[in-house]
Amino acid sequence: MIIAKQFLSPTAQELIRENPLALQAYNEICEAILSIITPPYPYFIINNSEKNCNGVTPIKDPCYEKLENRYLWYRDKPLAYLHEDMKKGGPINLYKEFSEYGDSEENFNVGVEFETGNIASAHRSINKLRVGITIKELDLAMLILPIKSLSFYLTDRVANYEELEPYFIIINDLPFIVIGFDADEYSPVVPLLPKGRDGMSKRSVRKWYKKDKRPMDGF
Amino acid sequence: MIIAKQFLSPTAQELIRENPLALQAYNEICEAILSIITPPYPYFIINNSEKNCNGVTPIKDPCYEKLENRYLWYRDKPLAYLHEDMKKGGPINLYKEFSEYGDSEENFNVGVEFETGNIASAHRSINKLRVGITIKELDLAMLILPIKSLSFYLTDRVANYEELEPYFIIINDLPFIVIGFDADEYSPVVPLLPKGRDGMSKRSVRKWYKKDKRPMDGF
Repeated sequence: MIIAKQFLSPTAQELIRENPLALQAYNEICEAILSIITPPYPYFIINNSEKNCNGVTPIKDPCYEKLENRYLWYRDKPLAYLHEDMKKGGPINLYKEFSEYGDSEENFNVGVEFETGNIASAHRSINKLRVGITIKELDLAMLILPIKSLSFYLTDRVANYEELEPYFIIINDLPFIVIGFDADEYSPVVPLLPKGRDGMSKRSVRKWYKKDKRPMDGF
Repeated sequence: MIIAKQFLSPTAQELIRENPLALQAYNEICEAILSIITPPYPYFIINNSEKNCNGVTPIKDPCYEKLENRYLWYRDKPLAYLHEDMKKGGPINLYKEFSEYGDSEENFNVGVEFETGNIASAHRSINKLRVGITIKELDLAMLILPIKSLSFYLTDRVANYEELEPYFIIINDLPFIVIGFDADEYSPVVPLLPKGRDGMSKRSVRKWYKKDKRPMDGF
């Protein structure tokens, strides 16, 4: 997969420049996206025989797996504010507490949404991350979604980078990064990516809710 | 109809206290909501015989009519930023430029979204209004939606005040008002409100895009 477009707010740029933990988070996410391939090809190639012909879950799953298995990110982290106090809103897709000295006081907490819903759902993702930042549960937020030319061959109405772009003005004041990914290659003859529900969930080993049950499964 | 719940950000409260145009806007919106009735009853009564049994358009339409016909609001106002520059994002549902002395330099511009979509759509509405405020096309933003107990008897998954409430923290920094309305009465025997697409559109006399064609149809 390639990173075709990206937006880094001024605060996000400053964090990446000055905070090694922010840089580490950014690098891990970028590496996980770049590592998405369609075996046996050593890169990501997508069927472009027809509009909306591929599912998006087979793209998301290997990215999650890499982040969980290699970099020890957690999946489905509820914001305490939304869940303990208010019992509302879904969890953050991906979450990791970075710490340079193993000192929890110095944690740098990053939340990532991998958007596979429609444009309205992308707005909810942005607002969920904004809540996390506002109540200081997150120090950096990232949103990952396909660019328009790729989304044309994915599930109907999946949000794309370009349609969200006019709204970047409202995240410019936050530590926020948006990444638009694209296939390395398009071909009308490679296999379709299957559609359907999240195939990864059952295999996931690092759901946040399991965390307290396995205290040694640390960061 | 009654106004059962409302949220006014600190800035919105200050505006209403100190700016007569903001107070006028707020009063016009409240009056339009309160004036929604189900004739022949002199109040709003809704069928509660079954979950999701009523449409929401018959609630929205008389509110729009009142605001257009009596208070000269416009419908479907595109934000110049989203449309002239970027060609993205739908228009604002209701819009009016308030002016005390007929001086356009002193305009106080208000944008209102009457939310009849799901919760993700409500987040998009919030973000659209946030764009309007950020680029100073709007001085005050309002979002109108049913409270939870009423939404139970409206179209499936229509957003309600309570499910959005945890997110008010992210509009606390904006001149923003959220109004949650409720029926005056519930009854299992009154007629159902029909579902379906926006029945009002064809009757609307004050679409924003028609404005320049009829310059005398002023504010």
